Amino acid sequence: MSAARKILKLDRPFEMRRGGALHDVEIAYETWGDLGFCYDNAILIFTGLSPSAHAASSTEDPSPGWWEDMIGPGRPIDTRRYFVICVNSLGSPFGSTSPASINPATGSPYRLTFPVLTVEDIARAGYEVTRSLGVKQLAAVVGPSLGGMTVLAYCALFPNAARSLISISAAARSAPFSIALRSLQREIIRRDPLWREGNYDADSIPVTGMRLARKLGMITYRSAKEWAIRFGRERADAERRPGDPFGIDFEVESYLEHHASKFTGQFDPNCYLYISRAMDLFDLADHGGTVAEALRRFTVERALIIGVETDLLFPIEQQQELAEGLSAGGRDVTFEQLPSLQGHDSFLVDMDRFRPVVADFLNSH
Amino acid sequence: MSAARKILKLDRPFEMRRGGALHDVEIAYETWGDLGFCYDNAILIFTGLSPSAHAASSTEDPSPGWWEDMIGPGRPIDTRRYFVICVNSLGSPFGSTSPASINPATGSPYRLTFPVLTVEDIARAGYEVTRSLGVKQLAAVVGPSLGGMTVLAYCALFPNAARSLISISAAARSAPFSIALRSLQREIIRRDPLWREGNYDADSIPVTGMRLARKLGMITYRSAKEWAIRFGRERADAERRPGDPFGIDFEVESYLEHHASKFTGQFDPNCYLYISRAMDLFDLADHGGTVAEALRRFTVERALIIGVETDLLFPIEQQQELAEGLSAGGRDVTFEQLPSLQGHDSFLVDMDRFRPVVADFLNSH
Repeated sequence: MSAARKILKLDRPFEMRRGGALHDVEIAYETWGDLGFCYDNAILIFTGLSPSAHAASSTEDPSPGWWEDMIGPGRPIDTRRYFVICVNSLGSPFGSTSPASINPATGSPYRLTFPVLTVEDIARAGYEVTRSLGVKQLAAVVGPSLGGMTVLAYCALFPNAARSLISISAAARSAPFSIALRSLQREIIRRDPLWREGNYDADSIPVTGMRLARKLGMITYRSAKEWAIRFGRERADAERRPGDPFGIDFEVESYLEHHASKFTGQFDPNCYLYISRAMDLFDLADHGGTVAEALRRFTVERALIIGVETDLLFPIEQQQELAEGLSAGGRDVTFEQLPSLQGHDSFLVDMDRFRPVVADFLNSH
Repeated sequence: MSAARKILKLDRPFEMRRGGALHDVEIAYETWGDLGFCYDNAILIFTGLSPSAHAASSTEDPSPGWWEDMIGPGRPIDTRRYFVICVNSLGSPFGSTSPASINPATGSPYRLTFPVLTVEDIARAGYEVTRSLGVKQLAAVVGPSLGGMTVLAYCALFPNAARSLISISAAARSAPFSIALRSLQREIIRRDPLWREGNYDADSIPVTGMRLARKLGMITYRSAKEWAIRFGRERADAERRPGDPFGIDFEVESYLEHHASKFTGQFDPNCYLYISRAMDLFDLADHGGTVAEALRRFTVERALIIGVETDLLFPIEQQQELAEGLSAGGRDVTFEQLPSLQGHDSFLVDMDRFRPVVADFLNSH
């Protein structure tokens, strides 16, 4: 747990969009920089599926954050100028109320009794944090991947709550190809006998299912082009167990094995299932009848839409749809189509391309 | 089992390329049309990973084959003109010797004692069939996907054994992205507790692993574009079990479930593992030091290389590499880059595009 983590405790029930209510909700967040005298310099960041609110290092927690190169003094999201808030998504196990939390009504973890989670619920939990800090209007609401979807939900739900938005490698709704992949990841976890319909023990979580689902994620987060350059047909060191004809042959297999094992145990499986499904269920068209109409209703002054040409999960056409829809509504839109090779993950890796784009947008007003 | 199935029984040991030998090898095949007086009108077809030798219907077996629209009287591979042979790959469970066969030395199935299978072994098994039929030189050797790789292996191993080749959605070697996906499919099967290190019972095969691996295959065999058009965000009929928050929401999930369940039980899991790994191990550069040199050594007069722009597993650049390598060696090459939406599976689905291309090539000499 990060020493920089703050917790907002809500003293009223949190009504969930698809039914049900949570009590004693807690929302974890971290902040960097100072809120200005007019409370008008706040930037709110939503995360992708798996990170915590620890987006960058700070005095309280000097360990590098998941977007360390993007946030800090003199960095594109400049903490000398902006008061930066990053929230841990509702439903995520890093401090916010989630399926892994204790249900105050029963004294046991929610597990599958947690109500259906939507991207809108995650957006509203972030909104509660900004209100609790006294921020009426954000300078910008920012997010990559699921975080970008959450940005869209935020702007749809809360008109005038942000002057600008930055959506990175997101979409107005998931494509069936992405739904199929995430649905399969969830099924892989659910078919692990240790999942036990969500009632796994803390010391025997469905690690195999989580590891396999993570490997599938890692494959689809990057691009075939990058891997062709990076791995080619390099063979792995002789790690094969004697007599195992299906051990590791290639370097790319060894890479997946290493990284998937690192991930497992860090993320609660039920939380993963809930957030993953929230991404499938999200549909901006729920906020106006069509995606175009929902975007037309947005009130931000300016928008930065960034997409990556090699992204399999949130293809560039989906970024274009956002840019065009916002332009049609009269927003001042900057659309950046980046040729990064690292696919959906580029915003975490190809910082030389992402940093100037974000910096230019935030500096240009 | 198809009534049209013929079996070649080899009376000498079959030496495997990576070591080991098989005894009493059987190779299943079917034929259509008649072998001409000069034995010069034979076409040999290799299959993708999962089909049997039943590529088309016949009097003996009127059920439709896996390439029914491509083979027959008046069809692109015209059985009035050509004597067409389709072999069941060595290692596949549909009649050819495979990990599911009884090892004559032990009286028990080979299972994981089956030697490492390579694409070259599959090619040589096909070659044995042509020799047994008295065919010294094929009019054409043809194959899609794994079958296309087998075509390349065939031409590398047996100079002058074919006058032309048709390679469809294949590659000189697997890209790391494809290797990663297939490696994950194999691991999903191997992690099913019912796999039992390959020693599953006939009445309790690892169906869950096979079903999940098949779903992953189906996702990567098609394209995101096709599914966006086909499924959009259509919701599935209310099939969700009450109380199951992770049942089926979307039509695309229902489609995957339906088709994956059909496949399971048809294909022996150990055979799947062996053939899948053979695709990863194949590298045409083993036949000349580099892919370019291997292709330069090919002796066919003419080559048709077909690729599909939306293919994730065997991307169009890999088809271009084949076409350019063969051209550089002086072969007469036709390269067809098709805009089909159905990804890697297009050769089974987009017949209106594939039929004329194959027909024109075979009719043009």
